[in-house]
Amino acid sequence: MIAEFKLIEKIKKQFLVTQKNVIGIGDDCAVIKTGDKYLLYTIDSMVQDVHFDFDLPLSWDDVGYKAIVRAISDIAAMGGTPEYVLIALSLRKDFTENMFNHLLNGIELAVKEYDIRVIGGDISSSKIVSITISAIGSSKNTPVLRSGAKIKDDIYVTGYTGLSSMGLYILKEGIKTKKSKIFIDSYKRPRPRIDVGIKLINYASAMIDISDGLIGDLKHILEESKVGAIIEKHLIPVHDSFFKIAPLMRERVYEHILNGGDDYELLFTAPPEYREEIEKLSIELKTKITRIGSITKKGLYIKENDKIVPLKSSSYEHFKS
Amino acid sequence: MIAEFKLIEKIKKQFLVTQKNVIGIGDDCAVIKTGDKYLLYTIDSMVQDVHFDFDLPLSWDDVGYKAIVRAISDIAAMGGTPEYVLIALSLRKDFTENMFNHLLNGIELAVKEYDIRVIGGDISSSKIVSITISAIGSSKNTPVLRSGAKIKDDIYVTGYTGLSSMGLYILKEGIKTKKSKIFIDSYKRPRPRIDVGIKLINYASAMIDISDGLIGDLKHILEESKVGAIIEKHLIPVHDSFFKIAPLMRERVYEHILNGGDDYELLFTAPPEYREEIEKLSIELKTKITRIGSITKKGLYIKENDKIVPLKSSSYEHFKS
Repeated sequence: MIAEFKLIEKIKKQFLVTQKNVIGIGDDCAVIKTGDKYLLYTIDSMVQDVHFDFDLPLSWDDVGYKAIVRAISDIAAMGGTPEYVLIALSLRKDFTENMFNHLLNGIELAVKEYDIRVIGGDISSSKIVSITISAIGSSKNTPVLRSGAKIKDDIYVTGYTGLSSMGLYILKEGIKTKKSKIFIDSYKRPRPRIDVGIKLINYASAMIDISDGLIGDLKHILEESKVGAIIEKHLIPVHDSFFKIAPLMRERVYEHILNGGDDYELLFTAPPEYREEIEKLSIELKTKITRIGSITKKGLYIKENDKIVPLKSSSYEHFKS
Repeated sequence: MIAEFKLIEKIKKQFLVTQKNVIGIGDDCAVIKTGDKYLLYTIDSMVQDVHFDFDLPLSWDDVGYKAIVRAISDIAAMGGTPEYVLIALSLRKDFTENMFNHLLNGIELAVKEYDIRVIGGDISSSKIVSITISAIGSSKNTPVLRSGAKIKDDIYVTGYTGLSSMGLYILKEGIKTKKSKIFIDSYKRPRPRIDVGIKLINYASAMIDISDGLIGDLKHILEESKVGAIIEKHLIPVHDSFFKIAPLMRERVYEHILNGGDDYELLFTAPPEYREEIEKLSIELKTKITRIGSITKKGLYIKENDKIVPLKSSSYEHFKS
């Protein structure tokens, strides 16, 4: 099987864009400077049997909602404001009108919540259901790339990671547990950090949204910025709810927090002189923003009980055999 | 089964855009006026077992090429210049590196030919292969909509229709025939009318690219413009090659020409006072442009041997049971 990252590397090479004012493949969005503003473009697919099943656990409302949210989160990750989406639907012959209505309602809920317009679409029949969203956003300020992290920058994360991944685990295993609502909600209805992203454009040196897992996406920043990092385990935020679930599940908590994915929180770096401003921002937007480590020259390490050990990612990769 | 047009009507209603300077769902592209230019957006999917098979007759080069061409043809249909594309790929686990290389080569050929940049992408695994292209174009002049046809306007078509559809028929039936190259080429490597579209922006009152068949797409113009049309059969261009194939196949020639689809020729209307300009344009661009009828108050009729009969479309529809 070909690894996804290898395919992407190939595409990046073959379709290298050397145009002035254009940033092509390799970041959360493509960026085109037009006049005095930046236009942001991204495309993202949700595919049956990969991102959701035809039956449970996601309802069609959830699938529609999540498709939109995943795409606009890429715009948040660059500090942009999402404005428009185009939607390509592939539907199975047994996709009923009722399913279609629910799918549209989920989409409608998301676009209303984030004040976006659906301006175009395409419908095909197919043997599997898939939804591809092309999202368009803009920014007056220079968008935050993955490649801007500098040595000694702080590393921050918004909210909590691992909730969504634990939610999927609970749903898949059919675990009956109280206190599971927050996990399941995080999985079904993730909340992209649009407002935070827009404000962070003034402070962040590099930024990404967490779809592949905290470590997986940190690695993307490190690769693009050609730097390393050290994460302090005791600084990583752990949501209270993780302490309220069964002890057996608790054992794997850090696997979810570090490698879970599907969080749509923002992971970013910023120079230490912005610590105070970022704290103020956190209070202003009522959003937890936690400093979890700092950028180094190279390598990726985690500090735990005064021991520093190399950190390996095992983030989800579609094409891993 | 739900009819595709019913689904689209539903989406149009539910996501009606009332913003100034924005044209939403319902035309070949969405249009957003920014500053002194118009940005055009479209999304289009090619799905395995619907638009191509995993094996023959299209090679992966053809699939890649065609995916690009189909999307940018929508931009041509409004008189715009295609500039950028984003590509979402869903690939099967047994999709080899060799297939991937051929797919990329087809894409590369098309984007080079039409001077487009690939600025973004997404790769998923899936049980079937699909390619969704989101294309971005622009225009300094007001884009030509489907809704601008006026009574007494002439109706024109570029090039020849039916070739691609006959090509698919020849390939599917495995017919061994000389003189089949032009049909097969038209199917495998359609040529969108970018240059013609850009020039027609000055004359056309309504325009569409022919993907659903001459009559099917004419109906789209008539519906959006709330008018009728009469087509003169003897005016419809019939490519010479149709006369060179087996008599049995020749019987169904007008089915291909009228309802074939996948042509990516332009179908447009223009006021009669532009006849001379359009003729000049045809010579200048070395592109056949043929007047085939005119816009009327209502209904859709074809004139054949001085008899006028109502014309029914049977254009390809994905969701027809």
